[in-house]
Amino acid sequence: MSMEGLPDQRHLLKPKSDHIARVDHFVSPTMRAAINGHNGGVFWFTGLSGAGKTTLAMAVEKALFGRGYRTYVLDGDNIRHALNADLGFSTRDRTENIRRAGQVSALMVDAGLIVITAFISPFRADRELARAAAPLRFYEIHVQADLATCEARDPKGLYKKARAGEIADFTGIDSPYEMPDDPDLVIDTQNHGVEECLRQILNYIEEKTVLSDAPSTREKTWG
Amino acid sequence: MSMEGLPDQRHLLKPKSDHIARVDHFVSPTMRAAINGHNGGVFWFTGLSGAGKTTLAMAVEKALFGRGYRTYVLDGDNIRHALNADLGFSTRDRTENIRRAGQVSALMVDAGLIVITAFISPFRADRELARAAAPLRFYEIHVQADLATCEARDPKGLYKKARAGEIADFTGIDSPYEMPDDPDLVIDTQNHGVEECLRQILNYIEEKTVLSDAPSTREKTWG
Repeated sequence: MSMEGLPDQRHLLKPKSDHIARVDHFVSPTMRAAINGHNGGVFWFTGLSGAGKTTLAMAVEKALFGRGYRTYVLDGDNIRHALNADLGFSTRDRTENIRRAGQVSALMVDAGLIVITAFISPFRADRELARAAAPLRFYEIHVQADLATCEARDPKGLYKKARAGEIADFTGIDSPYEMPDDPDLVIDTQNHGVEECLRQILNYIEEKTVLSDAPSTREKTWG
Repeated sequence: MSMEGLPDQRHLLKPKSDHIARVDHFVSPTMRAAINGHNGGVFWFTGLSGAGKTTLAMAVEKALFGRGYRTYVLDGDNIRHALNADLGFSTRDRTENIRRAGQVSALMVDAGLIVITAFISPFRADRELARAAAPLRFYEIHVQADLATCEARDPKGLYKKARAGEIADFTGIDSPYEMPDDPDLVIDTQNHGVEECLRQILNYIEEKTVLSDAPSTREKTWG
């Protein structure tokens, strides 16, 4: 390809990715919901380390699966080690970590799944970006326990390391946790046991994914 | 948190992401396969622009869905506009585009889905990285037509733009396509019509995802 003799007008073109054409899928979320027996949705758990997000997410997945739901958990385990293995814990990388998790969640919802996410996701702006990826099917669930409670639990010994200075920018210690302003659901793990919390979440998810609850005729959840 | 009085030994720690603990899911791919009636898998279409990847991917998805399979197509449309909206078409960005697509595919396979991907994915090393994300369930399908045929089809007018210098680094024109050395399946769209190609792919996918074909006892596909 020679550019000789041609004025360089490439700057007049729109962004590079503009030459990606959209091709509609033949299989819509409504069709997937019909064979699954439920709608998809992103149930986004947010809260401090030790609040119980992963424990509850895994228990929810197991219970939903037992009831015949198509479901999947996204968490630090399956995201950080693979898709986001290139990211660290700087503010910028944390934002990108959550952005990608939100987009993968949206793709999975488009594929018909109930996605449970378990990320601290301490910043409101990041959570709003995740919501924007699947706006019609996103539910923010604040898994809540105060810092003293979480630090006393310290299931992975991370608070101890953070207090010892071995981990920097640890949420709740030397990096802020921005509480949800208006979460779709609050689960109080400080005053309720796992079984009660699980019951509340399952009721909520079943209510939000029941087939009669089709939110609108606009089905595409990513964009 | 004060670092005063403490020697800074953070450089002695392993990479930052090392403090992410692995928590096993209660629901295994085998359990998902049992309720789906088939195994998951990544069917990775590679080939020149215009070779027929997207057309075939959408037709395969529709046909599989009609037969009761859980399936999803990942392509430039749902990946480039969202998860990978931050990436352009430089060599580095193309590699990252395919890396992420491979990792998302692996997550979806872990969730039980049959994933069909439609990316040019011109570089062998990138495709091998995608395979490594789901090594037991990855099938490379070369959707093949020669450059002259693809350029004559030019369904999106991209070859014309590339020849006019409006798109740089276009595969087949001024950027190479590295043919698969040993693809799992070759689909010749130059000499066969869509229906015949579709038939060949469906036969192959059904063979590879049939339940008796559990490949091993090691079920985790990401990591």
